[in-house]
Amino acid sequence: MSEQRNQQPDPGLLSINTATVRQQWTLDKIIDGCARHDIRGISPWRDQTQALGLKETARRIRSHQLTVTGYCRGGMFPAATEQLRQANNDDNRRAVDEALELNAQCLVLVVGGLPESSKDLYQARMQVRDGLATLLEYSRSVSMPLAIEPLHPMYAADRACINTLEQANDLCDELGDDGLGIAVDLYHTWWDPKFSSQIKRAGKSRLLAFHICDWLAPTQDLLLDRGMMGDGVIDIRAARWAVEAEGYRGFHEVEIFSARNWWLRDGDDVLSICKQRHLDCC
Amino acid sequence: MSEQRNQQPDPGLLSINTATVRQQWTLDKIIDGCARHDIRGISPWRDQTQALGLKETARRIRSHQLTVTGYCRGGMFPAATEQLRQANNDDNRRAVDEALELNAQCLVLVVGGLPESSKDLYQARMQVRDGLATLLEYSRSVSMPLAIEPLHPMYAADRACINTLEQANDLCDELGDDGLGIAVDLYHTWWDPKFSSQIKRAGKSRLLAFHICDWLAPTQDLLLDRGMMGDGVIDIRAARWAVEAEGYRGFHEVEIFSARNWWLRDGDDVLSICKQRHLDCC
Repeated sequence: MSEQRNQQPDPGLLSINTATVRQQWTLDKIIDGCARHDIRGISPWRDQTQALGLKETARRIRSHQLTVTGYCRGGMFPAATEQLRQANNDDNRRAVDEALELNAQCLVLVVGGLPESSKDLYQARMQVRDGLATLLEYSRSVSMPLAIEPLHPMYAADRACINTLEQANDLCDELGDDGLGIAVDLYHTWWDPKFSSQIKRAGKSRLLAFHICDWLAPTQDLLLDRGMMGDGVIDIRAARWAVEAEGYRGFHEVEIFSARNWWLRDGDDVLSICKQRHLDCC
Repeated sequence: MSEQRNQQPDPGLLSINTATVRQQWTLDKIIDGCARHDIRGISPWRDQTQALGLKETARRIRSHQLTVTGYCRGGMFPAATEQLRQANNDDNRRAVDEALELNAQCLVLVVGGLPESSKDLYQARMQVRDGLATLLEYSRSVSMPLAIEPLHPMYAADRACINTLEQANDLCDELGDDGLGIAVDLYHTWWDPKFSSQIKRAGKSRLLAFHICDWLAPTQDLLLDRGMMGDGVIDIRAARWAVEAEGYRGFHEVEIFSARNWWLRDGDDVLSICKQRHLDCC
């Protein structure tokens, strides 16, 4: 096995999810920052592209020849009323269009949690399936891959009721692999006892994105206390080998929400440290 | 189905995990409080019984004829050194002895997370299996059931690397059902996409304890922001029906860690509200 494994990752495969420095910089500065640090991948959020303008965002990203490793985000399928569900569907189609304009490799889906005042997680999951099926009709027609991102179970109520790689694989089985796959974010999946077997089950065709950061122990906040690679307990390198063993050759996208640490630092310092830690710890 | 389901739970099956009012009262006062409120079950923690004295605790619980629905807690199996592992094993045997003295229905196991400076979750899980096998030799010889409590994945690093009912069932399969089962705590397991099927798989013989509280949305703290039944998103009644469908007839143990709310209230008020919410929401 060992000869097949690259001890260090290809530095050209580092990508920055723009949430990582969103408190320091606006999107135009983040794009420039990535180019300045010779980081070749970027994954922007919708609110940021709307602020900068979609066409202007696309122009700036193209001018630096950055790869858009994913567009954040679509999803939020479950809704309490048919009207809300329809509005979500419409918004998701717009997200697909924006992802196309940006030439993104995929639209990342945070699928949504329980609808207002509902306690029916099973029903929410059925709504995710149905909403996804509807969106797929459109996304397939325009060839924009959708990446289901299983979120950590601590977000099951309010962000995503797809919480394991197994659920994501089950959805791919049910809805068909064409234009549908998985965004594997280690923050959300590192604890999963079936991580290895479900990565294997997903295989190269379903592995559309690979997101990295670290799980701090202890974690101080459910949302905004993600760690820099190497500062926590995730065996990121082993996880990279697992996806590479299936043939994944895509980017390694750093996504760190950190209100108490990384968002308070100089943006250039953060990107420099991301590059170094990517090499040393991933 | 519906005629087999009791809409409201038997109020005689309410139990109070002593953590629920541990900031207000010492253990002797909690025991008196349960008796005063006609709550027939109690589940004390080791630090509390040590403070009150084990024999004195047993005497007071007996004098009120309370059922000890579980003893909190043993476990913490993974360790960085053989010496630490041996110390844990010794401590776990003492926990079994204490549970016997209290005539507890089971010793609840929080199995432990990653050893110091380890990132190897697989290895930690193997250490859990091995430590559990060792402890079972003793617990079986004295007929004290061990209840594996799967903890929410947000505790995988530092508290328990057994995070799903499926893992717990797998351990029971591997180590044998005799004197081994599962403590189903809804706070930890409500999100699990396999909740129903794994409760079914566990069946009556493995269902040793049923812990209730609620998941608040949003949750403000990873440890100390559990909700009172009815204040969150868990469908507690559906979960009770699920365990009852397998033949579970044991207690419903309320365990609420709540630094910002319930620990700040009058202990009698908390117990009164537990009783009411048990009837209304469980």
